[in-house]
Amino acid sequence: MKNMRKILVTSFLIAAVSFAGSGQRKTVNLPDLPGYVTLKCDFHLHTVFSDGNVWPVYRVGEAYRDGLDAIAITDHIEYTPKKDMIPINHNAGWGIAQGTAKEYNIILVHGAELTRKMPPGHVNALFIQDASLLDTDSIMDAYEAAIKQGAFLQWNHPGWRSQEPDGIPKLYPIHKTLIEKGWLHGIEFFNDSEYYPLVMTFCKQYNLAVMANSDNHGIISETYPKPEYTNRPMTLVFAKARTSEALKEAMFAGRTLAYFRDMLAGREEYAKPFFYQCISVGKPYYENDKTIFFEVTNKSDVPFYLVNGVKDAPQEITLIANGTTRVAVSKKVTAPLTYDVKNVITGENEVLKIELKYK
Amino acid sequence: MKNMRKILVTSFLIAAVSFAGSGQRKTVNLPDLPGYVTLKCDFHLHTVFSDGNVWPVYRVGEAYRDGLDAIAITDHIEYTPKKDMIPINHNAGWGIAQGTAKEYNIILVHGAELTRKMPPGHVNALFIQDASLLDTDSIMDAYEAAIKQGAFLQWNHPGWRSQEPDGIPKLYPIHKTLIEKGWLHGIEFFNDSEYYPLVMTFCKQYNLAVMANSDNHGIISETYPKPEYTNRPMTLVFAKARTSEALKEAMFAGRTLAYFRDMLAGREEYAKPFFYQCISVGKPYYENDKTIFFEVTNKSDVPFYLVNGVKDAPQEITLIANGTTRVAVSKKVTAPLTYDVKNVITGENEVLKIELKYK
Amino acid sequence: MKNMRKILVTSFLIAAVSFAGSGQRKTVNLPDLPGYVTLKCDFHLHTVFSDGNVWPVYRVGEAYRDGLDAIAITDHIEYTPKKDMIPINHNAGWGIAQGTAKEYNIILVHGAELTRKMPPGHVNALFIQDASLLDTDSIMDAYEAAIKQGAFLQWNHPGWRSQEPDGIPKLYPIHKTLIEKGWLHGIEFFNDSEYYPLVMTFCKQYNLAVMANSDNHGIISETYPKPEYTNRPMTLVFAKARTSEALKEAMFAGRTLAYFRDMLAGREEYAKPFFYQCISVGKPYYENDKTIFFEVTNKSDVPFYLVNGVKDAPQEITLIANGTTRVAVSKKVTAPLTYDVKNVITGENEVLKIELKYK
Amino acid sequence: MKNMRKILVTSFLIAAVSFAGSGQRKTVNLPDLPGYVTLKCDFHLHTVFSDGNVWPVYRVGEAYRDGLDAIAITDHIEYTPKKDMIPINHNAGWGIAQGTAKEYNIILVHGAELTRKMPPGHVNALFIQDASLLDTDSIMDAYEAAIKQGAFLQWNHPGWRSQEPDGIPKLYPIHKTLIEKGWLHGIEFFNDSEYYPLVMTFCKQYNLAVMANSDNHGIISETYPKPEYTNRPMTLVFAKARTSEALKEAMFAGRTLAYFRDMLAGREEYAKPFFYQCISVGKPYYENDKTIFFEVTNKSDVPFYLVNGVKDAPQEITLIANGTTRVAVSKKVTAPLTYDVKNVITGENEVLKIELKYK
Repeated sequence: MKNMRKILVTSFLIAAVSFAGSGQRKTVNLPDLPGYVTLKCDFHLHTVFSDGNVWPVYRVGEAYRDGLDAIAITDHIEYTPKKDMIPINHNAGWGIAQGTAKEYNIILVHGAELTRKMPPGHVNALFIQDASLLDTDSIMDAYEAAIKQGAFLQWNHPGWRSQEPDGIPKLYPIHKTLIEKGWLHGIEFFNDSEYYPLVMTFCKQYNLAVMANSDNHGIISETYPKPEYTNRPMTLVFAKARTSEALKEAMFAGRTLAYFRDMLAGREEYAKPFFYQCISVGKPYYENDKTIFFEVTNKSDVPFYLVNGVKDAPQEITLIANGTTRVAVSKKVTAPLTYDVKNVITGENEVLKIELKYK
Repeated sequence: MKNMRKILVTSFLIAAVSFAGSGQRKTVNLPDLPGYVTLKCDFHLHTVFSDGNVWPVYRVGEAYRDGLDAIAITDHIEYTPKKDMIPINHNAGWGIAQGTAKEYNIILVHGAELTRKMPPGHVNALFIQDASLLDTDSIMDAYEAAIKQGAFLQWNHPGWRSQEPDGIPKLYPIHKTLIEKGWLHGIEFFNDSEYYPLVMTFCKQYNLAVMANSDNHGIISETYPKPEYTNRPMTLVFAKARTSEALKEAMFAGRTLAYFRDMLAGREEYAKPFFYQCISVGKPYYENDKTIFFEVTNKSDVPFYLVNGVKDAPQEITLIANGTTRVAVSKKVTAPLTYDVKNVITGENEVLKIELKYK
Repeated sequence: MKNMRKILVTSFLIAAVSFAGSGQRKTVNLPDLPGYVTLKCDFHLHTVFSDGNVWPVYRVGEAYRDGLDAIAITDHIEYTPKKDMIPINHNAGWGIAQGTAKEYNIILVHGAELTRKMPPGHVNALFIQDASLLDTDSIMDAYEAAIKQGAFLQWNHPGWRSQEPDGIPKLYPIHKTLIEKGWLHGIEFFNDSEYYPLVMTFCKQYNLAVMANSDNHGIISETYPKPEYTNRPMTLVFAKARTSEALKEAMFAGRTLAYFRDMLAGREEYAKPFFYQCISVGKPYYENDKTIFFEVTNKSDVPFYLVNGVKDAPQEITLIANGTTRVAVSKKVTAPLTYDVKNVITGENEVLKIELKYK
Repeated sequence: MKNMRKILVTSFLIAAVSFAGSGQRKTVNLPDLPGYVTLKCDFHLHTVFSDGNVWPVYRVGEAYRDGLDAIAITDHIEYTPKKDMIPINHNAGWGIAQGTAKEYNIILVHGAELTRKMPPGHVNALFIQDASLLDTDSIMDAYEAAIKQGAFLQWNHPGWRSQEPDGIPKLYPIHKTLIEKGWLHGIEFFNDSEYYPLVMTFCKQYNLAVMANSDNHGIISETYPKPEYTNRPMTLVFAKARTSEALKEAMFAGRTLAYFRDMLAGREEYAKPFFYQCISVGKPYYENDKTIFFEVTNKSDVPFYLVNGVKDAPQEITLIANGTTRVAVSKKVTAPLTYDVKNVITGENEVLKIELKYK
């Protein structure tokens, strides 16, 4: 046989191209929490059955490739601009996509978007059985119909400028009524390419789940092109198992983090252990007269931007995603190595505080 | 505060740019073997002290960014074309780079390349103390000087067409003499962008380590540009610890795999457990009348191309790197789900055979 | 003012992201021919009105971003698997998309795909007025209805393995009848990710247009992901003006080249001037005793692979796309510097021959 | 022959990989000005002969690939940290690289960096004959030695924080003396990844050339990685011909623009015609009751960010690089369509004003 060979690139690229197909799922590197599995979810997606541009099955393939565990197709109940060509069918997205979802191991949540002026604005009903019952004149009747089906109600993009010109989310009386009745369970902190810091205050005050969704009407890979975007918006749900029932239980319990680009947002009780599951701090590998060297490995897709270091320590450290960061600390430092994590948001004006324990 | 915000891309890119600097190390996703740590190594690099284009310290920063554990700077003893401008100093690479190597947690192996016509061709002496003692007239004297220093001797690019016009590596009498004396310990299977299948036969017959190195004279990131190349050539060494001593012990024991692009090459005793450490086969998540569906997750950077499936099973499966592959198997299949792994080479004409145990 | 500034990346990325939107059109670098404008076209696209996954308007936005001049939406007449959810309307694609096409300066060709078993296989009717008249039992009736509307008839993917298991296109009696009647005007050389060399023979023999189309059912940017793919398949039409009428005239006249990846295919009478419009050969900029140096600039997106150089000349030269290639020629060369252009196909077993005139 | 073929990716990638080599030059899409050729230049580069990490010849190959026309290797006269290993030779960079520069059609400018504390800071002497004569105790003697050789003197990074902690460039008495004597000819507006707006004021007041250089010590492709960076910093020089002499004449005449990322900076007399050479405004292609549609094509690598539109017109338009932008203008607009070009800087607080003439 011929024994010297130039390495061919063919086999390599076949892999790349087949990845563009739908037989494979990218790994999203985000750790589980102790006792929980972290489900990556997008609960806000549109299709040609309202004002989206794609067929429902496509949403499943797209989610599969993107490494998601669960999605909801949430076409508008009240806005169906294609109805002259496509007869209205509020359950069509769910009905058409569920077979494919089973074959692709995607949890498909039955949903719909109640689409009203502000207040109350847009609300997604998730985990319903029949979306056609939500097509009512009175919005409160629609909510009630959803709640009777066991729905999780999520307030969408509360600071969307088309409905709130100043961009500031506001709790109107109807929202307070919903909260009092137990008819509101989550709010979008991230939507599409926006976020609303004030949502953290609402969620903490009323014990609601913090959500992140794409609200996509077109193509995810074109809305969030690589390499500018490493990922689509995701709600991370800490569930007891990877099942639809466990997902629902976790969401009602508010065990979520909102994730988009290089930002995480949510309650400190989830953000803190999530951060520590992402990183591991190595023992010092070298020291000289003045300096101790150690490494921090970040096993997740989220870079962490540490700021506000203590006296004599590095003032800022970036823990790159899927990589290891070398830290050189002066021997003069005696205080614990504490930092604010600039991109992990735990309140309207609050970020996560952590410590790197290297000794 | 202003409560609706367009997400800025600034913070994201700051991370990307700082990664291009030298404070951070990319994670190379390759598993350890039970009882061993997998060290990622390049034992063949040049600098301005022979015919390379870079300063020795640069090789350390480059290796750090690329996620390597160990490198050797191996400038030519007999070929120093810059000597009119840079006085000959065979220990310069080692001497200049070792301080930086310590600070960057890179194991720097002291080495040199003995550069003769074929036979015997080029041979790297690794783990030496003084390269100047290798500058002898007789090549056997040079080998002896290296061996006296405890060197690991690696035969480089044995099928390089500049020395073997037909591209076929040949064991000349001098190589056999070296083997008999215990003066040859490894052979490059991969070098630069070539590989030599016959090296597998030599290594298995004489119990030598299978090696993969870049032999780089310029810039690694320009020689192996992304995205065409996901990685530089690496020798994977299965060591008892991440130390220079443990690395040396493992190499003399032949516990290596050669890795480049999407190919692995080496003895089945290392390739087989390495493959099974890379993947995990999930339990079936869905079945219908005809088909069982399960997923295989590949946690490594190496895609695996499975071919020659059994009757009624998928004939070919690509287990993408860092991702999950969905497998649909007909219920008619009763035999074990065995495959040849096309890109894991265990002999001159032999690839790894594996089984996916999904039931 | 503060006078030292780190350059922010924000403004740069705003541009990148807005490009992902639909307000801008990428320049496809392909030259005009003397007397003609080169129109970039895709005459084979599907939507939810047959078995595609997207809404018709999306095809216009996609084409706009990709830099095309003209497209045809060609949903299947005989295959409408979504008809339970979307009532059959063979003119829907055209009717829905034409307003957007005008606003985006895209020439939208009214079309439909006649979808029959082989023979005759699939045929696109282009430049029609009413697709519903093509919904007939007899395929010859359908062709006649198209021809009466002035249609250009294009035979699609003649070697598609689902209809021709050996992959070899065959001219069946019905095709010969169509040709005799003047009812066949073009054949796809490229379709999706395949090509059929024998089509060159048919087209040259019967004076038919050589076509390249995507036949896309999903998302172009996902079917042809960057950087593996630089472009989607395109039929290049050499028209007297950038109008629907001039486009049609040029297609009936057979003034086309088929373009995909790094390959061009078509008649030498178009391929040769197209090549010379792409490149310019510079005067020698330097010479020494033995060698003359000159540069060849390729202003197009198509790299050209020159092979079979004359005696003593470089045997192979790659003229990279959108770049300049340095050529070093021995002074011993006296013959004209002729080459075969490996990736410009002018016949089933024939490639373009050219000369680099540098003196 | 086999007539259906899957398209192989091999040939495509061979092109990509060979581009990574040094036989080909990328086209930088920047137009000439009427009567002048636009030379792309980097007049500030280091090698191992001072504190750089690369061999001089590498700088030529790098510039060639990047599409430059001219470079200067400007090693420090007063700072030679590698002198224990590499004997001092101030002309080494020039001497070693000039042969390769000729073969690669790169204009190599002989240069050196006079490296003093601020004031006067660092100054490059360009177009010299013997750098060793610049190694003097007195800096004024060094300048004189350069001027006697006909040198162009360029003040480097005047707001560099290591020398000007507040980042603000200042004209010290010594700089004024140099200007009075005619011994200062240009100032860096861009250096590495910084820019200094105040330089525009100095250059306009004293009629000096506006410069942009990389000041690179490592690897250009790693300092400015794609896709974050589309290009390295360049001084664009408008010369009467592509020769060293014409380049020098143009620089002394101050015919330059500074270019980096998506920014251009320089005198309006060059910036304005340069902008209009980059773009072409098409005639309206469509209109309806309210709106006129036309396209603007930008043939250059520089995107242009138009802001401050007139009443009823689009307030902001991004003219993407190498693409076409669709503009929809209300028929209510009667004023000329004027804009500020945010990223073309013509003064410390001034940007270029332009008009799009579409009617």
